[in-house]
Amino acid sequence: MTRPTPCNPAFAARVADSFARQPFMATIGAELRRVVPGRVEITLPWREDLTQQHGFFHGGVVGTLADNAGGYAAFTLFPADASVLTVEFKLNLMAPAKGDRLLAVSKVARSGRTLTVCHSDVYGLSGRRRQHCATALVTLMRLTGKPDAPVA
Amino acid sequence: MTRPTPCNPAFAARVADSFARQPFMATIGAELRRVVPGRVEITLPWREDLTQQHGFFHGGVVGTLADNAGGYAAFTLFPADASVLTVEFKLNLMAPAKGDRLLAVSKVARSGRTLTVCHSDVYGLSGRRRQHCATALVTLMRLTGKPDAPVA
Amino acid sequence: MTRPTPCNPAFAARVADSFARQPFMATIGAELRRVVPGRVEITLPWREDLTQQHGFFHGGVVGTLADNAGGYAAFTLFPADASVLTVEFKLNLMAPAKGDRLLAVSKVARSGRTLTVCHSDVYGLSGRRRQHCATALVTLMRLTGKPDAPVA
Amino acid sequence: MTRPTPCNPAFAARVADSFARQPFMATIGAELRRVVPGRVEITLPWREDLTQQHGFFHGGVVGTLADNAGGYAAFTLFPADASVLTVEFKLNLMAPAKGDRLLAVSKVARSGRTLTVCHSDVYGLSGRRRQHCATALVTLMRLTGKPDAPVA
Repeated sequence: MTRPTPCNPAFAARVADSFARQPFMATIGAELRRVVPGRVEITLPWREDLTQQHGFFHGGVVGTLADNAGGYAAFTLFPADASVLTVEFKLNLMAPAKGDRLLAVSKVARSGRTLTVCHSDVYGLSGRRRQHCATALVTLMRLTGKPDAPVA
Repeated sequence: MTRPTPCNPAFAARVADSFARQPFMATIGAELRRVVPGRVEITLPWREDLTQQHGFFHGGVVGTLADNAGGYAAFTLFPADASVLTVEFKLNLMAPAKGDRLLAVSKVARSGRTLTVCHSDVYGLSGRRRQHCATALVTLMRLTGKPDAPVA
Repeated sequence: MTRPTPCNPAFAARVADSFARQPFMATIGAELRRVVPGRVEITLPWREDLTQQHGFFHGGVVGTLADNAGGYAAFTLFPADASVLTVEFKLNLMAPAKGDRLLAVSKVARSGRTLTVCHSDVYGLSGRRRQHCATALVTLMRLTGKPDAPVA
Repeated sequence: MTRPTPCNPAFAARVADSFARQPFMATIGAELRRVVPGRVEITLPWREDLTQQHGFFHGGVVGTLADNAGGYAAFTLFPADASVLTVEFKLNLMAPAKGDRLLAVSKVARSGRTLTVCHSDVYGLSGRRRQHCATALVTLMRLTGKPDAPVA
């Protein structure tokens, strides 16, 4: 999709605000990087406590980034009163998720009234080297009139 | 699959040992519960730092359990010298992942020479109430002659 | 899901009617078999013109049955004025799709207001032998107020 | 993946030959279009007998093209003695599959020793209009020493 138009001019602040309200992002140390209409990047520095038995980032961590980047990429195109929900995601782990940090990049492929589809890719970064370690398809749902906040 | 036969009699100890060597499991507080041939259960008590912006378990946490339960369900049927790798997984989030704890149950649907397919289901448990919050298909690969240990 | 209740008593006739209006089902020779609330079976006799290069049913044919059985399993629980749409499906091909016929069985795992999730399994039947050749997760959408008929 | 190198110089003839030995491709009228290393295109003219109840191409037909284009994209990079098998595929149907013809384009994202991952996209073409109607992730397996021919 080329240059999608956000219907909420404050989309970037809204994504940052929502991201900051996800405790699990702080738990794993994920940082929101780049937020443009229909595209979001998240980065995550390596930590030993995020790994699996071979010393690489755990596949669940990779999936978390792919899912979350997709959710926020979709969210950039939502109206101000809508919330986002992951319907499903499918992740192919193509190479060991290793490096100084992970970078997840997600782009909206289709933004419909109810459903949005995103492609998420996760890269392992080591200095200037970048390895494509996972690719995902993420389906998101727009919940209109539902605030993006904790359930009271 | 009815009553698959493990080719490694020490399968349960091997799964427990590998699980214990995944730092990310300790990070999120996941516990290995039940390990029988072709079936593994993992449980995870609720913690605020595992949630998303609505106060439910983060989808990435749910995916982590679905993936890991699948990996170890496959692993129960592997020979002693083989390691397991997640090829891909696909997760449908069907209801909010909430409750006192999550329970992930994975069963081997097909155990081939190279590839294994598992069905993983994740439930939110609140007292005696059990809600089916996610279902997944996980494809695993058997790496023969590769130790299940950190890369030196 | 145990014993879902259809909200349209004429659900079986409605499924049969819609199935009959899918020209592609006639093209491949698929037959609707069993229709109960939340569960649909479709069968397909072997034909040489449905195969791939190894003489087995083509994976696309297997996917067609998994998708369609899922769509109609979801449809059994829809109100009379709603139409069904496949959002996405994911199919694992676990064994060669061979035999005298294929049997696809789909069951609703979650029937929500907007989205339904089904598990579809496809078996190759040869006389009394039954081989589980594929398993799928299918996400369907309910389109309320949209007739299940050709676009004028 | 930029400019993958085929290890079999006769890759294009090999893909064409295999495609021609898939009876189901002739059944639906699919045509192999463009075959370059790591990328394959398949096209399919509209026919009423390939449709679902709304008059669009059936989702199973769309899935068939996404799967097959992925299989042959992977196949372009295989050695001469290897055969290809679809492990699984996941398809998001993003818009009605309509038009004069469908075009499926698949590109290899990762070509490993055993497994290959492809992104397949399907477009509906109407005159000069092109609509992105589906996107898929396809996982393929390389079977070394197995001829790409009917089972005797």
